[in-house]
Amino acid sequence: MKAVLLLSGGLDSATCLLIARAEGFDVLALSFDYGQRHAVEIDRARALAARYGAREHRVVRLDFPGRGASALTDASIPVPAHGSSAEAIPTTYVPARNTLFLAHALAWAEVNGASDIFIGANALDYSGYPDCRPEFLEAFERTANLATKAGVEGRAAFRIRAPLLAMTKAQIVRQAVSLGLDFALTSSCYEPGPSGEPCGICESCFLREKGFREAGVSDPIRAKS
Amino acid sequence: MKAVLLLSGGLDSATCLLIARAEGFDVLALSFDYGQRHAVEIDRARALAARYGAREHRVVRLDFPGRGASALTDASIPVPAHGSSAEAIPTTYVPARNTLFLAHALAWAEVNGASDIFIGANALDYSGYPDCRPEFLEAFERTANLATKAGVEGRAAFRIRAPLLAMTKAQIVRQAVSLGLDFALTSSCYEPGPSGEPCGICESCFLREKGFREAGVSDPIRAKS
Repeated sequence: MKAVLLLSGGLDSATCLLIARAEGFDVLALSFDYGQRHAVEIDRARALAARYGAREHRVVRLDFPGRGASALTDASIPVPAHGSSAEAIPTTYVPARNTLFLAHALAWAEVNGASDIFIGANALDYSGYPDCRPEFLEAFERTANLATKAGVEGRAAFRIRAPLLAMTKAQIVRQAVSLGLDFALTSSCYEPGPSGEPCGICESCFLREKGFREAGVSDPIRAKS
Repeated sequence: MKAVLLLSGGLDSATCLLIARAEGFDVLALSFDYGQRHAVEIDRARALAARYGAREHRVVRLDFPGRGASALTDASIPVPAHGSSAEAIPTTYVPARNTLFLAHALAWAEVNGASDIFIGANALDYSGYPDCRPEFLEAFERTANLATKAGVEGRAAFRIRAPLLAMTKAQIVRQAVSLGLDFALTSSCYEPGPSGEPCGICESCFLREKGFREAGVSDPIRAKS
């Protein structure tokens, strides 16, 4: 029983990996080099895939038309500090990112006869990205089943699995603890230092710290403050 | 008024390009190098984009998980002759191809403030690919508007435009004639010779020849038989 899993190297996708493994899936992990400034996460993804027994790990280089439009992929746009943006969707939004990631996952799933596609999307303690919301994931799932030979012929009914969707960050931390995740292998920061140390001020650092604090767990990679 | 247009270099996407230009769009043309054996189509796409005034033409190299699963991208799988396959969806099907192409188009459209995305999909004289059908295109359009900042904020309601969807190949040929398309610039064959000459036996050659014959138009690139 195979599943394709989007593995960014962050806390959420790492927890997702452990959930998929606990459910008994052979995991085909998929990461992307899309010009993100936090490229350290790709190394973390490699380490996570190896440690937690992914059957295969593929890093796809994405020649990506939206690269020049996000603080995550254009070094000239500063990464905003948590709380500094009045916009509902911040400048770290990357155009069509999850649509692209899921399209790649779908192709790989079909080739491998996998029906389940795991994504660590979360719509509670998240940055407000539209492509993390349940209505987007449902629409993509429907598209996937209309798009593919396997979907149309009924050999595979593709399921977009987002087990963290309705969890708080604290619940995700607790779930990760219960599954034995080594948090030191993960990276969440949007603008980490050269050795991967978190900045401690971006939205992603804020959400991670809030999660650990509320879960009463200490984070081994927490920035000194 | 900008539109992103998927330009394969074939008859359908070339006709689509002329339709978009006739509607007054500044066209951002998008082609893919995804390992297709008929890579000559990329050169044709370049020539078409230049001749018909695309504002920009981008050729994206796609590191594509489904490459080993189609007669179009794996040289060890023969391209079937027209009529030789009993399957509704032939071996030339490429997993999730149009989902990937449209996802890239969506990202580029959002970055450029374009709302219209043109695709030369046809669901009448076609090869039976599921991702050419209207229900797929509608599902993708819905997904696109849920996935993106522009869609959610209502700055752009993305529209997937498939003006050839319900045309016969003969109608497409007539439409192309009326818009002044130079057919010699297009390539439709799945397995062309080294100079781009069509094989004359694949499904795509068959559909093209049928279209020209029924339209009463002579095809300048027709294979000698």
